[in-house]
Amino acid sequence: MIKIGILGYGNLGRGVECAVRQNPDMEVVAVFTRRDPKDLQILTQSAQVCHVSDAENWKDKIDVMILCGGSATDLPVQTPEYAAMFNVVDSFDTHARIPEHFANVDAAAKCGGKVGIISVGWDPGMFSLNRMYANAILPEGKDYTFWGKGVSQGHSDAIRRVEGVKDGKQYTIPVESALEAVRSGKDPEFTTREKHTRECFVVLEEGADPQAVEQEIKNMPNYFADYDTTVHFISEEELKENHSEIPHGGFVLGSGRTGWEGEHHHLIEYRLKLDSNPEFTSSVIAAYARAAYRMAKEGQTGCKTVFDIAPAYLSAKTGEELRAELL
Amino acid sequence: MIKIGILGYGNLGRGVECAVRQNPDMEVVAVFTRRDPKDLQILTQSAQVCHVSDAENWKDKIDVMILCGGSATDLPVQTPEYAAMFNVVDSFDTHARIPEHFANVDAAAKCGGKVGIISVGWDPGMFSLNRMYANAILPEGKDYTFWGKGVSQGHSDAIRRVEGVKDGKQYTIPVESALEAVRSGKDPEFTTREKHTRECFVVLEEGADPQAVEQEIKNMPNYFADYDTTVHFISEEELKENHSEIPHGGFVLGSGRTGWEGEHHHLIEYRLKLDSNPEFTSSVIAAYARAAYRMAKEGQTGCKTVFDIAPAYLSAKTGEELRAELL
Repeated sequence: MIKIGILGYGNLGRGVECAVRQNPDMEVVAVFTRRDPKDLQILTQSAQVCHVSDAENWKDKIDVMILCGGSATDLPVQTPEYAAMFNVVDSFDTHARIPEHFANVDAAAKCGGKVGIISVGWDPGMFSLNRMYANAILPEGKDYTFWGKGVSQGHSDAIRRVEGVKDGKQYTIPVESALEAVRSGKDPEFTTREKHTRECFVVLEEGADPQAVEQEIKNMPNYFADYDTTVHFISEEELKENHSEIPHGGFVLGSGRTGWEGEHHHLIEYRLKLDSNPEFTSSVIAAYARAAYRMAKEGQTGCKTVFDIAPAYLSAKTGEELRAELL
Repeated sequence: MIKIGILGYGNLGRGVECAVRQNPDMEVVAVFTRRDPKDLQILTQSAQVCHVSDAENWKDKIDVMILCGGSATDLPVQTPEYAAMFNVVDSFDTHARIPEHFANVDAAAKCGGKVGIISVGWDPGMFSLNRMYANAILPEGKDYTFWGKGVSQGHSDAIRRVEGVKDGKQYTIPVESALEAVRSGKDPEFTTREKHTRECFVVLEEGADPQAVEQEIKNMPNYFADYDTTVHFISEEELKENHSEIPHGGFVLGSGRTGWEGEHHHLIEYRLKLDSNPEFTSSVIAAYARAAYRMAKEGQTGCKTVFDIAPAYLSAKTGEELRAELL
């Protein structure tokens, strides 16, 4: 059994707990929290709840520590810190800071003789893999990524910071005609506005001015100003009833040409349609935890990404089984 | 530059030649044929055309030999034979015989200190990878493979063997309602007939009986009897005009559930839409030739499949570039 520790118990940590249960060769042995452990109820009967300050004492009792903190402030500190003591997996998703994060985790993991896998999930993660495979197969081609339909936590948070807004949810929606243009092999160039629209469901504070709120949302730089944005005002009950899930997904399209004169077009399309963004991310993480365990057993050390990991490491099946059943 | 040899110059060999030209770090140095080399015209000015019996003399001048023979009789013999002398890549696609082929190539490649990558292309190949990733991520799920719309060479050959048939082409077509049933998360079980239909375009010999030909095609065991098959009789000109390309493609769908009680559904969908089946297969092979070269440089030996190869080996980009641009 691969012994898993979970550090951080929000949506992602709980998702990892659920994912590990689906993998018969893994078990969660401990969940680490910054809260008082007495106040935390987890689902796994056999696992302990510990304070994060106890983690060090689990060095020999955990094969892979899964870091479920946020990318803004938690993971840049936590992943290098814990990679010195444990094999770790994180879902660091600030694309622009990945090179720096990689370097920090690589140094720490090599120092500790551990494996640290960063940026695991679906984007970065499965979408990255599909961008990379498509580019490697079709060098005379382009790749396109579309997100949604799904809930963007960052944009939902931005809505909730607007004065007069009590609660809100934002959906990112890919523009169907843009998808079709890529599929047809036209190799289009898009503006931000042409690829995605944004749809907001907003609960107002009592007495708030809907027109003012709508304008402030629609004109918010970075978040909404570059998009066609729709704002719907709904009741708190309706928000709870219809918008309490966290679905997401999207598309990676690779479009390219082959032949001596580029006479043939090819389309590679990878699509995810996810009822729960954190649970799917967690499921990818659980598979890569298996990889971390196996690579460490082989004596590998340092930081790895999905690009560096042979697919077979993710599967509970043996090489023989994979070749006979799935090749 | 990675020096590529091509053994066999049919549709696949010519496709490899085109694919290599798209990769700036590779060049075709020689094409080996069973024909008289004087009778073979290739596209690459700088490459030599040699008789297959000369291959041995190229041991030190070729980094990766790409074997472009057929799976029925060529590759089971050729791949082990050449894997003892060269790093090789093949597209062996007889799924049931892969374990045996793997064992033979593994022994030969280890003996020769070479890397042999087998069963590269899209199925087996990219489709296998997607089946494997989906199963590893969603252990409580199922995977489905649909082929088409595309030309099946085997079924087209079968049509042409029918008495009274001068020429013909067969298209395999996935049943849209079956795809939709999978996408909706119903986890359906399908009979053969429910997943694909077959459409045949047939040119009759003069005086042949269309009804007899149609009945013989539709009732042909293994090939057509288990499917809903449509037969169209067309002129030789029409066949040439509208059916001389070799498009193909298909879908790998992974459907599964997550959550403590399986409360959330997820769909992973990988689709290929290929104008030229052999050219796309060749493009995948070219990327894996790069992997064979690099793995051999690192001192690895033996038989590998797409499951065993870290994605980064396929790309001409460095690890730093991949992390900065595609992760």
